[in-house]
Amino acid sequence: VINASACGVIQEAARHEGVFTGILGSHNGILGVLHEDLFDLTRESSRTIDDLRRTPASALGSCRYKLKDLDADRADYERILEVFRAHDIRFFFYIGGNDSMDTADKVSKLAADSGYAMAAVGVPKTIDNDLAETDHCPGYGSVAKYLGAAVMEAGRDTEAMYTTDSCAVLETMGRHAGWIAAATGVAQRTPEDAPHLVYVPEIAFSIEGFVADVKACLDRVGRCVVAASEGLVNDQGAYIATEAGSFSTDSFGHTQMGGVGELLKNVVEADVGVKCRYNKLGTCQRTAMHFASRTDVDEAYLAGQAAVRAAVDGVTDKMVTLLREGDGPANYACRTGLADLRAVANGEKLLPRSFMNEAGNHITDAMRDYVVPLMRGQADLRVGEDGLPVFARLARRAVKQKTGRSYSITQP
Amino acid sequence: VINASACGVIQEAARHEGVFTGILGSHNGILGVLHEDLFDLTRESSRTIDDLRRTPASALGSCRYKLKDLDADRADYERILEVFRAHDIRFFFYIGGNDSMDTADKVSKLAADSGYAMAAVGVPKTIDNDLAETDHCPGYGSVAKYLGAAVMEAGRDTEAMYTTDSCAVLETMGRHAGWIAAATGVAQRTPEDAPHLVYVPEIAFSIEGFVADVKACLDRVGRCVVAASEGLVNDQGAYIATEAGSFSTDSFGHTQMGGVGELLKNVVEADVGVKCRYNKLGTCQRTAMHFASRTDVDEAYLAGQAAVRAAVDGVTDKMVTLLREGDGPANYACRTGLADLRAVANGEKLLPRSFMNEAGNHITDAMRDYVVPLMRGQADLRVGEDGLPVFARLARRAVKQKTGRSYSITQP
Repeated sequence: VINASACGVIQEAARHEGVFTGILGSHNGILGVLHEDLFDLTRESSRTIDDLRRTPASALGSCRYKLKDLDADRADYERILEVFRAHDIRFFFYIGGNDSMDTADKVSKLAADSGYAMAAVGVPKTIDNDLAETDHCPGYGSVAKYLGAAVMEAGRDTEAMYTTDSCAVLETMGRHAGWIAAATGVAQRTPEDAPHLVYVPEIAFSIEGFVADVKACLDRVGRCVVAASEGLVNDQGAYIATEAGSFSTDSFGHTQMGGVGELLKNVVEADVGVKCRYNKLGTCQRTAMHFASRTDVDEAYLAGQAAVRAAVDGVTDKMVTLLREGDGPANYACRTGLADLRAVANGEKLLPRSFMNEAGNHITDAMRDYVVPLMRGQADLRVGEDGLPVFARLARRAVKQKTGRSYSITQP
Repeated sequence: VINASACGVIQEAARHEGVFTGILGSHNGILGVLHEDLFDLTRESSRTIDDLRRTPASALGSCRYKLKDLDADRADYERILEVFRAHDIRFFFYIGGNDSMDTADKVSKLAADSGYAMAAVGVPKTIDNDLAETDHCPGYGSVAKYLGAAVMEAGRDTEAMYTTDSCAVLETMGRHAGWIAAATGVAQRTPEDAPHLVYVPEIAFSIEGFVADVKACLDRVGRCVVAASEGLVNDQGAYIATEAGSFSTDSFGHTQMGGVGELLKNVVEADVGVKCRYNKLGTCQRTAMHFASRTDVDEAYLAGQAAVRAAVDGVTDKMVTLLREGDGPANYACRTGLADLRAVANGEKLLPRSFMNEAGNHITDAMRDYVVPLMRGQADLRVGEDGLPVFARLARRAVKQKTGRSYSITQP
């Protein structure tokens, strides 16, 4: 839902004509600034901009480029200021997770230190939901909704196929935080329903304990569907599964490979002795606009809008936060707030222990109450004559370069 | 969409009150007959029966049990007749792929040979779309629609992330036939769109050719999203990827493991030298009711209805087929026909060579015209307060056993 936030930024900025003389998009995050690779977003059709709400991923592109500390290398910073000055950029909105907020914070401090008047406001977005200072992050409600449906459906498959395929493992994203895996727990409305077991990185994972959990589940319901974070760690804090292509050894001495899903599938087949399937939805889970949460998309838009309003009001060096209001899921409401970019950049919000049960293998009602409001409603979708979604693609009208020089970044 | 066909059978049978004195469901396919494990479907609420249209997988369960030839072992057959006679079962509707049609055919012949008056009619269902005698199979349109959306969305992810993650591979189901992988090709509306490459089992796969294809694609569009059947074979007819957990060696002598998706990811990283992701939607692809094709669900229902009408008219030993009418996708219409169960059981329909381009790495307009009509419309979905789908589960009221004995099958 990065695009929904971008849409909120662009449409809100257009409402402040006296303040904004133009709206530029940066190609691939901060890389676009460094390379002076900018798009004129006012030359996009209003239909395209509006369709960004219904378009997954990031229409402006993205990067994994981390700015060095100002003390370590000034070159990138000088270049950023050069490009800002050349295009008279006085507002900087940056959407992303804590690395992105780190970038926004550094850019903000740079402008202030250089006496260059510019507002820098961050907009949170990460499906991982691990940003500090905000109740939740845009992107999370949609991955929760989609994966909840996927594990529920995979559960029906196992329910129908249990005479041959008794188990299934769904590997979810989440290297450090278990928010995503935990969200799938909502799909279990009754003990019959999948997922029967949920594992997160915040709780040390033991293969022995897992085997016992699966056996108990098979005894109880005759089948077992597991949701597991890709980032599960053992009691030493080491990942239980390494990247596909390398090897790890489980506590039984088996050589295992691949991701968590494949590892757990192999453990079930070897140590429980029943057939197991595994599903790894990978990047499909973070772009599943076809079953995105309306609440999430609306809040992403709202966050983009709020960033512009705050900046127009003179706010800088802050990230928009989402604040939960109302008592319990039935009365859920959300308003925006602000937090220091530095606090977000330095923070990380893990799943509270109270959101998982004592055994550490499923969620509690506290988790359910937290996530359910974020999953409600279905986002708008345009569908073409071929039955498939229709997404926007920016025309990407290049802004004429003004600095008169190219720039080489030091990292790839 | 097995459940949609079951719904069609049940609701149509209820309309012929003079003919049907009851409607029984068999738990886990033919196993339910052998174990005399039958449900009284007239005791289900009409709401539950109607919700079967919106429920993935098989509410009655399924099996992979294949009846032996009558000459080889009569025990199963005698038991089936015993159960049929005990419950006065005079109509037998069996939903599934060619193994299921083999079962239906054997049961039909058994009844005829034994002078037991019973109609046996098959209803096609396989996401693999590989049944002979029918233009297409219920189940296929929905997997095509869902995977088309998934690869389109994964394509947007790669488009946004190409500065770090330039490639992605989506592994689809399809051990022998490439129908499912080929369907994803529809998502490529313009050369920018994913999938950029599509591989099917009908065309011998070469790692060298694949590496060249990926390099050319990276040169052309700067990123590459691949859809590949799990059942890809080399020019010797051997699977290029073996089951997860075992090993195979590619033509470059690398040791590879896991499924096709993981193998191709490793090839891209090793031989093209860029980062690659892989997605394996596994059982989620065949149960994705949250984005199922309305056309497919409606046709599945129609096929169930047609089976009952045919049986009432005295037809036996046939499978309902779907016949395409109209000239081209714009005028698509579908009616039902009938084919001999034996012809379906013995047949297999692979993807025609003309549905793939000359290079064997993407689909042609002929494939697009074939599959697009099957993907149109979105199936009804009930959604709960938690934002997730609501599916039916049968109450499964057991029918009192009448044979007075239990039965042990010889296979697991």
